[in-house]
Amino acid sequence: MTGPVEPRRGAVRPVSVRLTGGFWARRQTVNGTATMRHSRTWMDRLGWTGNFRAPGTAVTRGREFSDSEVYKLAEALCWESARPGGEPHDDELAELTALIGGAQDADGYLHTAYGRPGQPRRYSDRHFGHDLYCAGHLIQASVAAARTGRAPGLLDIGIRAADHICAEFADDGFCGHPEVETALVELYRVTGERRYLDQAAAFVNRRGHRSLPEHEFGWQYFQDAVPIRSGTVFHGHAVRALYLAAGAVDVAVETGDDELLEAVARQFDRTLARRTHLTGGMGSRHMDESFGEDFVLPPDRAYSETCAGVATVQLAHRLLLATGDPRYGDIVDRVLHNVIATSIADDGRSFFYANTLQQRTPSEAPTFKKFSGGARAPWFEVSCCLNNMARLIASLGSYFATEDSGGVQLHQFAPMRVEAGGMVLDVDTGYPDDGVVTVTVVEAPAVPRTLTLRVPEWAAGADGVHRRVFQAGERIRLDLPMRPRWTFPDPRADALRGCAAVEVGPIVMCAESTDQEDGVHLDEIQVDTSVAPEAGAAKGRRAKPADSGWPYRSHRPALERPDPVVVPLLPYHRWARRGPSTMRIWLPTT
Amino acid sequence: MTGPVEPRRGAVRPVSVRLTGGFWARRQTVNGTATMRHSRTWMDRLGWTGNFRAPGTAVTRGREFSDSEVYKLAEALCWESARPGGEPHDDELAELTALIGGAQDADGYLHTAYGRPGQPRRYSDRHFGHDLYCAGHLIQASVAAARTGRAPGLLDIGIRAADHICAEFADDGFCGHPEVETALVELYRVTGERRYLDQAAAFVNRRGHRSLPEHEFGWQYFQDAVPIRSGTVFHGHAVRALYLAAGAVDVAVETGDDELLEAVARQFDRTLARRTHLTGGMGSRHMDESFGEDFVLPPDRAYSETCAGVATVQLAHRLLLATGDPRYGDIVDRVLHNVIATSIADDGRSFFYANTLQQRTPSEAPTFKKFSGGARAPWFEVSCCLNNMARLIASLGSYFATEDSGGVQLHQFAPMRVEAGGMVLDVDTGYPDDGVVTVTVVEAPAVPRTLTLRVPEWAAGADGVHRRVFQAGERIRLDLPMRPRWTFPDPRADALRGCAAVEVGPIVMCAESTDQEDGVHLDEIQVDTSVAPEAGAAKGRRAKPADSGWPYRSHRPALERPDPVVVPLLPYHRWARRGPSTMRIWLPTT
Repeated sequence: MTGPVEPRRGAVRPVSVRLTGGFWARRQTVNGTATMRHSRTWMDRLGWTGNFRAPGTAVTRGREFSDSEVYKLAEALCWESARPGGEPHDDELAELTALIGGAQDADGYLHTAYGRPGQPRRYSDRHFGHDLYCAGHLIQASVAAARTGRAPGLLDIGIRAADHICAEFADDGFCGHPEVETALVELYRVTGERRYLDQAAAFVNRRGHRSLPEHEFGWQYFQDAVPIRSGTVFHGHAVRALYLAAGAVDVAVETGDDELLEAVARQFDRTLARRTHLTGGMGSRHMDESFGEDFVLPPDRAYSETCAGVATVQLAHRLLLATGDPRYGDIVDRVLHNVIATSIADDGRSFFYANTLQQRTPSEAPTFKKFSGGARAPWFEVSCCLNNMARLIASLGSYFATEDSGGVQLHQFAPMRVEAGGMVLDVDTGYPDDGVVTVTVVEAPAVPRTLTLRVPEWAAGADGVHRRVFQAGERIRLDLPMRPRWTFPDPRADALRGCAAVEVGPIVMCAESTDQEDGVHLDEIQVDTSVAPEAGAAKGRRAKPADSGWPYRSHRPALERPDPVVVPLLPYHRWARRGPSTMRIWLPTT
Repeated sequence: MTGPVEPRRGAVRPVSVRLTGGFWARRQTVNGTATMRHSRTWMDRLGWTGNFRAPGTAVTRGREFSDSEVYKLAEALCWESARPGGEPHDDELAELTALIGGAQDADGYLHTAYGRPGQPRRYSDRHFGHDLYCAGHLIQASVAAARTGRAPGLLDIGIRAADHICAEFADDGFCGHPEVETALVELYRVTGERRYLDQAAAFVNRRGHRSLPEHEFGWQYFQDAVPIRSGTVFHGHAVRALYLAAGAVDVAVETGDDELLEAVARQFDRTLARRTHLTGGMGSRHMDESFGEDFVLPPDRAYSETCAGVATVQLAHRLLLATGDPRYGDIVDRVLHNVIATSIADDGRSFFYANTLQQRTPSEAPTFKKFSGGARAPWFEVSCCLNNMARLIASLGSYFATEDSGGVQLHQFAPMRVEAGGMVLDVDTGYPDDGVVTVTVVEAPAVPRTLTLRVPEWAAGADGVHRRVFQAGERIRLDLPMRPRWTFPDPRADALRGCAAVEVGPIVMCAESTDQEDGVHLDEIQVDTSVAPEAGAAKGRRAKPADSGWPYRSHRPALERPDPVVVPLLPYHRWARRGPSTMRIWLPTT
């Protein structure tokens, strides 16, 4: 099997590994069974699959992007069916392929909500139509079908949709929500048809000239404020920005457009330095699901949409393949363990749409219409995240290792078998709970090879590069320091001033009310950063503020009862799994 | 002349004073001429007045609440025409009255966007229809007409609209946006017709039972999550919450419903203690223009909508009249000088819709569709604020003083003539720039009277109560301490941790980039609160943070160049009047 990203050029080549146990293999199992079934049940119940059965009907169920959820599920089912040890879903894929194909217009257009009698015209809503967005997900599903050999017939449907797009958008236009760009490049990679790549390049280059009509969210939201080639930092709707950036990398790599590649890498760097939460989550604003300005990173109003996490992994992986720079693995590591792992429930049947970094009140659960809150929900009116995670987790083995002519690079750590660069490797580790990574060489050629293990930025000093003739049976050990550590924010991050967080390896820790001493509220805690944190706790004091009227006073407020207190901590991704609670990652310091 | 709020009961009675000079009299002049003309020009240009001319046409211009802007302007024109020294607008009022009356349906219904062939049905959008909201503003305009003797015929139009509402909503229903409640009570006060009061009471009591359909903003937004009688703190859409609370006070006062009055007072208290910005601004969220949770008060994402400021003044004034508690004057003072005065441009022709407490980048100006930003704009698609300020400022003389059987209470300070409680008083002051308030007794009865001047909370210790037989010509002097002072936030306000602000009297100060030393950026400044601030500056240091990649580090960031620096300050309401700039009220401390 291969994966969703298969560039024809780049510094390193993608490799698919078999995850054999541990943190992510467990989640792959839940994903391939419970989550995919859960998703299908909801989409049947809400009529999103049914929309494809009645293509002549004016009324469709769901939203203008609900078609895409069916495609994302189909993509996930392909990866899952082909994954070593995965659950085969060939019957369902055949059924979905027939369903989807039956709704396609003769000229290749496919959207169940547009273009038929009584429906709005095709492409009539340039801001929120999502016609091309949905087509992009269809094409990605068709690419997955081709690469896995599953869902016969789905590739042809994707090709017809792509051909229609190339004809319709030969001269101008683009979608309010980027997504089709990566899809068209991947279809080029599968078919070798250059016109798909050219069309993707045209979409990337057409944006940024404020050609869309004015909207209250501004051109930034739609990624139409500035050409990505001349941007300085990601802005506007986070998922739109990251999907577009991924498409731009794909175009840049295949066309040799180094200027475009550097432009995206530069913007990603600056976004990581100024617009990213400690968890790796992106997006500060609820209103338009967008990036905040530099250093606007309020934990209590963090948006950090799950889909933005998926998109960050997709983008970082593409930049890693293009440049070979291992530091892109750091952000993948961080996002997987602190955004993706946080979003999904243990049973795979509910999820966070937004991943707040602070919960102030044991809030009511989100509802079908209201996406943010302090509890995971089984489904939302906009349920993009669940199927996005499903396709990511099912194909996760393609994000962990790469190869080049000199050897193999291990970017993420898990129990896994890696066959790449002429070598067969077995990796054993308790990561992320444990920092020891052991690589056993199963097969190796009789020539020197370079085996590179990523050394995370928090483990600077460790040596991860090994170059020699490897012998079958020999072991390479990487020992990453897993002692809990204090982390301090940039002083320009106003919302984090006077706070510190605890991290352990790639894991961001949090304090959840559930674990605190009786009667100790999280807004009373101050931690002492002069004392090293322990694995599950920090030392601090309890400082209950005096309650009174107007909260702005002429003296620094006196604190009642500054009693010493131990503050139990747990991994952020484990929070909100034991009933309503309050939570904070950033802890005020004494 | 009287004012917009004329309760039949209450601890003190409203009085209308004549503002004779100073801060607000200047703004009344600009308001009565430039602002009202500016508003009319825009509404003509955009077709909002024209909607009334073509009532049979299916297509209307503007939004579902644009009718209300015409009514608010009519109300403002009434107050302005009747204000001593005001600009008479009787011709325009006659024209508007004819225009409005011509669009009214035979049964009293009046909304230019509903109910006619090709338009949506009346009251068909329970969330955002704004039918009753618009009717409320129509009725308030008709009340202003009746009280000022201006706009003959407008009262009858309002009465017909109210009678229609009483018939249509006898048994159930209410508007997604409260507003009609205060209007109906005021119409009861003008006409003595009890059914208007009963209808208002019914609207207040029907809310809070989650009877509206589910919406992504939640029931809180629409003030339908919990009955106001049992609420603990204001929540949801700030303007909706405050308008409803004002209506509830009106109902409570006229029906003797002390439980309801106390419920509103309790919620207002808690809102001031936990959900109000230093400026007195309310609303923390851009997404749904709503209150944040307790202590969620980010300065850089403060919403603090101008209309919420107007509504806070209206609510506090009602509670002041009901209870006689002078501390409600504190919040009126704060909001007038830091929200209302900030919003409006010196020429009265542009305004802030949202009043941020921190501007990080010299941002692009707001646009017709995008309301928040670092510059005032002449108009918005939703231009509620400008006409709301116009009617408030034109009637501002009714908010400054009250009377009871024992004497006169002065709640706000301005050069003014007060005729109340059997006395005639001339007030002279340079407030808010100067703290000396001199009251000259022009006439007084030969019996003891009590003259009470509000002592703001920042002036605690001063004596504002004088009871005796006053002599014509005698002077009473109040000397309020106007030395600049440091103000510190409640430690639970996470977004303000480690910061302090400077206040001078009722004025919140800010640092604007325009005034800083060459090359000193506002994100580099730390102030030293051990040194008393001066009128126009604080002492501090410049601490440029090191720029690097990932902004979360294992050591507190080292600061480059901690040079001593003087930080010039100016009143917050003066910011953004000299071109694009950055600004902050809350300054990090050393």
